[in-house]
Amino acid sequence: MAEEQKKGLEGVVIADTRLSKVFGDIGKLIYCGYDIRDLAAHASFEEVVFLLWYGALPTQQQLARLQERLHSEATLHPTVLQALKSYPTSAHPMAVLRTAVSQIGLNDPAAEDNSQDANYRKALRLTAKIPTIIAAWARLREGKEPVAPRDDLGLAANFLWMLHGHEATPAEVDALNVYLVLLADHGMNASTFTSRVVTSTEGDMYSAIVAAIGSLKGPKHGGANEAAMRMFREVAEAPSVREWFDHEVKDKGRRIMGMGHRVYKAPDPRAAILKEHANAICGAKEKCVLLGVAEQLEDLALADPYFVERNLYANVDYYSAIVLDAIGIETDMMTPMFAMSRIAGWSAHIVEQWNDNRLIRPRGNYIGAVDLHWTPIEDRRSE
Amino acid sequence: MAEEQKKGLEGVVIADTRLSKVFGDIGKLIYCGYDIRDLAAHASFEEVVFLLWYGALPTQQQLARLQERLHSEATLHPTVLQALKSYPTSAHPMAVLRTAVSQIGLNDPAAEDNSQDANYRKALRLTAKIPTIIAAWARLREGKEPVAPRDDLGLAANFLWMLHGHEATPAEVDALNVYLVLLADHGMNASTFTSRVVTSTEGDMYSAIVAAIGSLKGPKHGGANEAAMRMFREVAEAPSVREWFDHEVKDKGRRIMGMGHRVYKAPDPRAAILKEHANAICGAKEKCVLLGVAEQLEDLALADPYFVERNLYANVDYYSAIVLDAIGIETDMMTPMFAMSRIAGWSAHIVEQWNDNRLIRPRGNYIGAVDLHWTPIEDRRSE
Repeated sequence: MAEEQKKGLEGVVIADTRLSKVFGDIGKLIYCGYDIRDLAAHASFEEVVFLLWYGALPTQQQLARLQERLHSEATLHPTVLQALKSYPTSAHPMAVLRTAVSQIGLNDPAAEDNSQDANYRKALRLTAKIPTIIAAWARLREGKEPVAPRDDLGLAANFLWMLHGHEATPAEVDALNVYLVLLADHGMNASTFTSRVVTSTEGDMYSAIVAAIGSLKGPKHGGANEAAMRMFREVAEAPSVREWFDHEVKDKGRRIMGMGHRVYKAPDPRAAILKEHANAICGAKEKCVLLGVAEQLEDLALADPYFVERNLYANVDYYSAIVLDAIGIETDMMTPMFAMSRIAGWSAHIVEQWNDNRLIRPRGNYIGAVDLHWTPIEDRRSE
Repeated sequence: MAEEQKKGLEGVVIADTRLSKVFGDIGKLIYCGYDIRDLAAHASFEEVVFLLWYGALPTQQQLARLQERLHSEATLHPTVLQALKSYPTSAHPMAVLRTAVSQIGLNDPAAEDNSQDANYRKALRLTAKIPTIIAAWARLREGKEPVAPRDDLGLAANFLWMLHGHEATPAEVDALNVYLVLLADHGMNASTFTSRVVTSTEGDMYSAIVAAIGSLKGPKHGGANEAAMRMFREVAEAPSVREWFDHEVKDKGRRIMGMGHRVYKAPDPRAAILKEHANAICGAKEKCVLLGVAEQLEDLALADPYFVERNLYANVDYYSAIVLDAIGIETDMMTPMFAMSRIAGWSAHIVEQWNDNRLIRPRGNYIGAVDLHWTPIEDRRSE
């Protein structure tokens, strides 16, 4: 077979999927046939989880059953909590999540059962436990005791309960729920692809999810929301947003974090929805200086030919940073929040990969030396 | 860009590399220009590590310095040992390795420093600590205390010391060293590719290696040596090797585990070298029934038109299972042994990916529903 150079695998199709489709040219995203705008307006995250796993929206009974099972799996094994308590508080929260999820696999007696039923059970365990891990770590690293999950709250509300130790407002719960709905899947992104590569070796779901977490951790992928947040803080310190834009972006050529997307050449539909929710929470809050900063910066970019010509619109990271900040998520906990949502899509993709699997094994193009002769160590010279 | 369907990414080149090249048609493998046969005959694993990391064989001084640094990094942080002690003894050893390596990242204050210097330091830490983790887990799950590493032994000898608590014979050390040399790199295999996908998001080295471990764990990749071993045991129980071959392979169409390779269409050069070493150890041992089984089964396949026409030769997994078994490695610890070697190649590939990086982000081909309308939950019917 002829070799082709595809460093970023642009345009290379690696699987058929029924999960989500990004219409990059018109700025539309669907999950299993449903427009993300409809889902954001109406669905709970749990409904979206069901949709991605089983391909249809749940009935009331199915949803109730899913919620009950999520509640029953939300607590952590004592050894996982014990390990969390032993980690240095300076550790990167995504590295902590990666380790804790890996450890959860050790306690699952069915970890090596790769049947579809077992995979759905693992997906459920992880969807239930990841919020608990994140909330526990957020508290432990500040010297606070973890708060146990409740079985009378939905996933978004329960997370905020475990994080803060008090109930969140309805607007906060709504905003987090919408965030979780919007981030749950997005075509063949790098972390989803990572999970499929691991699965293609017939690797188990825990290995695939742990790999996906490591992939999402990268600043070029899930880490972009943290980078956007840090930039908003920097802009807020400048004499004015326009001055920062003119000096840093126009004169020095810095990128605006959270603008532009490899796939979208039209506005990212998720950004507008998150912007609305940011405004909804911030209407009732004071500390939303950064929302103003983000909106002003977006307006400057939308009026700038460089950004317009290159279709550099605010993407999902841009306003999700603002929403998460407004509901009390520390900046370095933002990528774990992304994982809390994307576990739905990752696990659905893993099940799909199992159903039509082939080892993913590309080629490298060797450009190094050939035919070198072995030299005994005493004859070698340092170069 | 036109979309192309490449489910297994066969023939798709995702990077230039100076690390290794597989000549599948003639059964040859080189690392940085050196034939694997020369390296197996002359080099220590540490020399190969140096070669893969720095592109040249080390001088005596460079090698001594590397060994000294490996010794200084070989011990585990007390919290890592404490966590190992809390894991269920039934856990899959690769899942334990995945978790422990992930945890090591938490204790590295430079974990998020992705400079080349920091990446080489991380690679060194992991190359030094992975043998210690594996030996410790092998003992802990049997209720034995871990044995501390020594600083007067090479990596292969030190591992066998930590595993068994006594010094291994020179033939055993040689065999393990050769195994480690032969498995250190192999083009753009699935776990190496996984590590590059994670790195392409600018993910840190720990995340990339943890992902690679999960990928190697899969039965279609690193797990193949365990599968070969289990098959040899089954064959040994049969009335004769020929009877098993005729009944299971010829009549029932079962695959022989450890034969055939996606890349090699000629004999895998690593298999012959490992076969020699298996004979060298087994010459001095009694319990090498399985070597005889493996050799007889190979001879049957080599004389069978089906195998000959399809180039189904014994691959590296076939005889590495025999070698590892002969030096006292439990079957389910064989894939961790693979990781102990491949960490050299993974880390070298990660450094290479950082030097010429682009986000690896393929496409999916959406074949699901479109334009579905939201239905309120009370109107939904179970399908």
